[in-house]
Amino acid sequence: MNFNHIQQLKEQNPLVHNITNIVVANYVANGLLSIGASPIMSNTPEEMDEIVSISQALVINIGTLNEEQIDAMILAGQSANKHNIPVVLDPVGVGATKYRQEVVKKLISKINFTAIRGNAGEIATLGEVSWNAKGVDAGNGEGDLSQIAKIVAKKYDCIVAISGEIDYISDGKRVAKIENGTPLFPKITGSGCLLGAIIGAFLSLDDDNFTLCVSACASYAIAGELAAKNLKDYQIGQFFVSLLDNLALLDDELAKKYAKISYE
Amino acid sequence: MNFNHIQQLKEQNPLVHNITNIVVANYVANGLLSIGASPIMSNTPEEMDEIVSISQALVINIGTLNEEQIDAMILAGQSANKHNIPVVLDPVGVGATKYRQEVVKKLISKINFTAIRGNAGEIATLGEVSWNAKGVDAGNGEGDLSQIAKIVAKKYDCIVAISGEIDYISDGKRVAKIENGTPLFPKITGSGCLLGAIIGAFLSLDDDNFTLCVSACASYAIAGELAAKNLKDYQIGQFFVSLLDNLALLDDELAKKYAKISYE
Amino acid sequence: MNFNHIQQLKEQNPLVHNITNIVVANYVANGLLSIGASPIMSNTPEEMDEIVSISQALVINIGTLNEEQIDAMILAGQSANKHNIPVVLDPVGVGATKYRQEVVKKLISKINFTAIRGNAGEIATLGEVSWNAKGVDAGNGEGDLSQIAKIVAKKYDCIVAISGEIDYISDGKRVAKIENGTPLFPKITGSGCLLGAIIGAFLSLDDDNFTLCVSACASYAIAGELAAKNLKDYQIGQFFVSLLDNLALLDDELAKKYAKISYE
Repeated sequence: MNFNHIQQLKEQNPLVHNITNIVVANYVANGLLSIGASPIMSNTPEEMDEIVSISQALVINIGTLNEEQIDAMILAGQSANKHNIPVVLDPVGVGATKYRQEVVKKLISKINFTAIRGNAGEIATLGEVSWNAKGVDAGNGEGDLSQIAKIVAKKYDCIVAISGEIDYISDGKRVAKIENGTPLFPKITGSGCLLGAIIGAFLSLDDDNFTLCVSACASYAIAGELAAKNLKDYQIGQFFVSLLDNLALLDDELAKKYAKISYE
Repeated sequence: MNFNHIQQLKEQNPLVHNITNIVVANYVANGLLSIGASPIMSNTPEEMDEIVSISQALVINIGTLNEEQIDAMILAGQSANKHNIPVVLDPVGVGATKYRQEVVKKLISKINFTAIRGNAGEIATLGEVSWNAKGVDAGNGEGDLSQIAKIVAKKYDCIVAISGEIDYISDGKRVAKIENGTPLFPKITGSGCLLGAIIGAFLSLDDDNFTLCVSACASYAIAGELAAKNLKDYQIGQFFVSLLDNLALLDDELAKKYAKISYE
Repeated sequence: MNFNHIQQLKEQNPLVHNITNIVVANYVANGLLSIGASPIMSNTPEEMDEIVSISQALVINIGTLNEEQIDAMILAGQSANKHNIPVVLDPVGVGATKYRQEVVKKLISKINFTAIRGNAGEIATLGEVSWNAKGVDAGNGEGDLSQIAKIVAKKYDCIVAISGEIDYISDGKRVAKIENGTPLFPKITGSGCLLGAIIGAFLSLDDDNFTLCVSACASYAIAGELAAKNLKDYQIGQFFVSLLDNLALLDDELAKKYAKISYE
């Protein structure tokens, strides 16, 4: 991580286009605003090319799908590739149904993704590693997450971020391990989806994609850690609120102070 | 109510599939996470059977409808009946339009519901009792809510829960009356919808459906009561947050201490 | 502004029908409840006429569009004109794409709007004044916003409200300028959309539309100002919560005390 990315983000205020699900749209928009990006959300195929052409990043999240939205995703993704802006895939619950697996396969065949963000269960599914996922939640499994991140990154030729108690980010060669965070993250819906959107925002900055993705994951994990600092484990509502405050409060100095990043 | 249900719920962490509206999806997901269940939300007909087959309960909420979603509801409901998992109907605003009445009629003709949860206006509409509902709000009416709950439960051969200042739960023979709660509940959108989802979560536990439904309603009402304890009547935002915290904090001991349940 | 409107609103508890976007639906519903209105949200063409016929105001927000929703907007708008209830247009991000401009043109050609609410970039687009908007955010531009409000109000023969650091409300002749508010408003998503909905609620009251629109904008700006009073600029999550509390707390006396309204 370079400790000037948060400042850069706040100065550049990138416009991040999100094709996302009905459950998290509000929280993702508020989270992007909090960290200093500018969200736009649309699933309308007719305006995809135009919205992408004014955006600095695109984030595609498959949490609640319909056919029109899938069309919009493909149009937006191809437009993003054409305009050379980063595209993030958030394969929510891809392990849960064959339908989601087919949609993801279709998206990956038509769009060059810059990064894929998922929990362990989702990324294991993409890597065809056996895993006991639970709906849209991570679930449990065995296997070296660091290895899985590397394999999936190689397979799809992009950055892969596995978020969880420890985050693993790989570009297929390097793996970064982030040990920041809080057990309150999986207690609020959309905490993973918001990370996917924030990765999109960071990828619009000027640095190599692996480093930017590490910065995004570390910044988010640290904001969560700070948000949870004075909270009890049952204060889920307070954490929902406090995470937004701490995304806004976070700066490079705080990130530098708290970051627990190691490389393999 | 049996005072071991909350513990059971937290241990079993049931996966609850919600087909719900765009207004409350986020809050319902966070509420289910708070009380210890695991939410999944999808309206996609193509994956309904598969999602239901991994879920422990299904909740169908008609708050914002479209044709594709109605198809998904029927597919999911029939799959739930086939897999023998509980199905809850939340007939949001059914008194407001003929369209909603026709949709509910269609759903009831094709799906065996385990429970129906609504406010007084909604359940009165299902019982064809005259009532002065107000949009999606309960409105005012005369009539013995205990009787209405019983009539509708008999009519549709399922558990009926009328939520309001006092909750009435009936299986067509018995009626339980719950006098917990807070006037802040109707001040936040989706407080009824979240109860519907929580009923779904409780119905996945091992006990008879009437008892489980009473436990769900009492637990939720008590969490609201505790959440409102130190709040003024205008602190609607604080209540939105505090309800999540108190759903997470609630345990069987607290429930036992506060429960005001009587039977007719 | 007449300092009895808030009391009137709380007494009459108008039912406000919202055709709105998936990002803000929850927050708009909670904001309407907080100020004393009753929200209903539906995008279903089949029930538009019936819902409008029981509503006291209609608010059309183009934040996330699809073809079915546009059909619902036209049906609802025409029904509102027929039933003589106020209709508000919120042309979210209309400067961002040609598609949104065409949709707005179509809506304006088929519906008589009582009021249009937008940020500077959106209203400038409607007035065909050059402006450097940013996605769905206001962006920067030159030009006398007071003049722009007046021009657009004349052009579409309705009340126009430009919200921002200073709000400008015009009926084509008069212009009111409101200097209440807080820099935290644009930090939460949907703060403009909620104002649009609140304008709808106020327009259901008994006074002239210009005065009612001024009251709505001033009341909302003051609630925001009070909500931000003890908050730091990074406390975005707290503001999200506190705005709801302060919408509920606000009364005509507080409004009178804080209002900074001038007329041109």
